[in-house]
Amino acid sequence: MTLSPRNLARSIDHTILRNNATEEDIRIACSQALEYHFFGVVVNPVWVRRASELLAGSEVRVISVAGFPLGANRTDIKVAEAAEAVEDGAHEIDMVADIGKLCADRFLEAEAEIRKVRRNLPPTVLLKVIIEASQLTADRQKDAVNAVINAGAQFVKTGTGYSEPVTVKQVRTLVTAAGGRIAVKASGGIRKLSECLEFLEAGATRLGTSGSVDIMRHCGSAG
Amino acid sequence: MTLSPRNLARSIDHTILRNNATEEDIRIACSQALEYHFFGVVVNPVWVRRASELLAGSEVRVISVAGFPLGANRTDIKVAEAAEAVEDGAHEIDMVADIGKLCADRFLEAEAEIRKVRRNLPPTVLLKVIIEASQLTADRQKDAVNAVINAGAQFVKTGTGYSEPVTVKQVRTLVTAAGGRIAVKASGGIRKLSECLEFLEAGATRLGTSGSVDIMRHCGSAG
Repeated sequence: MTLSPRNLARSIDHTILRNNATEEDIRIACSQALEYHFFGVVVNPVWVRRASELLAGSEVRVISVAGFPLGANRTDIKVAEAAEAVEDGAHEIDMVADIGKLCADRFLEAEAEIRKVRRNLPPTVLLKVIIEASQLTADRQKDAVNAVINAGAQFVKTGTGYSEPVTVKQVRTLVTAAGGRIAVKASGGIRKLSECLEFLEAGATRLGTSGSVDIMRHCGSAG
Repeated sequence: MTLSPRNLARSIDHTILRNNATEEDIRIACSQALEYHFFGVVVNPVWVRRASELLAGSEVRVISVAGFPLGANRTDIKVAEAAEAVEDGAHEIDMVADIGKLCADRFLEAEAEIRKVRRNLPPTVLLKVIIEASQLTADRQKDAVNAVINAGAQFVKTGTGYSEPVTVKQVRTLVTAAGGRIAVKASGGIRKLSECLEFLEAGATRLGTSGSVDIMRHCGSAG
């Protein structure tokens, strides 16, 4: 797969979700996003307002999370966390589905939760739903994708980074199940340029990684 | 240190915070808690109501979490998550402090957040605050303990289990800083009976572990 560094960067959500990130860490991450032209910066809810100030007027999107990383919160908490992040300036929300429900084949309940989050967000805000694919059988991954589509979200996202790293097989399963009805974001343990290219080739259109700057340096030297 | 199995069990918060826990997993954990007489069962918010039903009429406490495990949520979300868990039947709340603020020496802000959570809980509900000690210098651990005390919480808790395992040194640092003004719960990677005894000897009065049943079996065979 050939890809310009600029196009690669525009597929990357530059992610800084460490619990111990400080204001200085957020400032650096935002300045890296501006320098490398990443698609967005993913920050925890406590940092959305600051990231929004730092990225104001730029093309870099502010992205936050809801129910991250366990997804085992009450639905109303996920709804509120997502809506408040948007009030603070987020353009996109990466929410974690109720993984326990997906593992118990309770897809309709997981879907109903996602729908509630979606309905409480402005239409212009893009909603991604993390299904923690590495904890699901291939069949459950497909059913989860359908739940995410039925709920009206725009993206299905492979993982949080708190489980096993994403695989090409998972991305292919999600892309096939999506059938063009929804986009796929690959995330969870992505560290190398070669992985990025593989996931994009498999049909993902967005990548989430905290190793973005290192990946871009390799991309620059390769291209 | 000598300790009866019963007294050991009564110091343990039997913890099941896995993202993919199912209703059956929660049922088993609650039945184990009743069998071994654990002090409490710690479940994610989505399971508080069910655990509360399963443990109704017993001495086993229902414990839930707020802002778990990253602690990087907005304050109002932590406040709501804690208060709603109590509405659902929780007797105790283990909240995660704003670790980024502790790492940046912004102790007063972290304290203000804890105070808000405390003030929105009924007085009978016990509040524990996780400071993720393994990510803090000894000096910051001490300052964090003081923030937790000033905010009116009842326990300082070492870790979430998503960072390095708790050490005896950390427990001693927290116990010394607490000076009897607040209790200490040791948690994060506890798997062995010998560790439990060390942490209790160091002054912790509560232990959090998901390895509780295995630990009790060793305790039984040792005693």
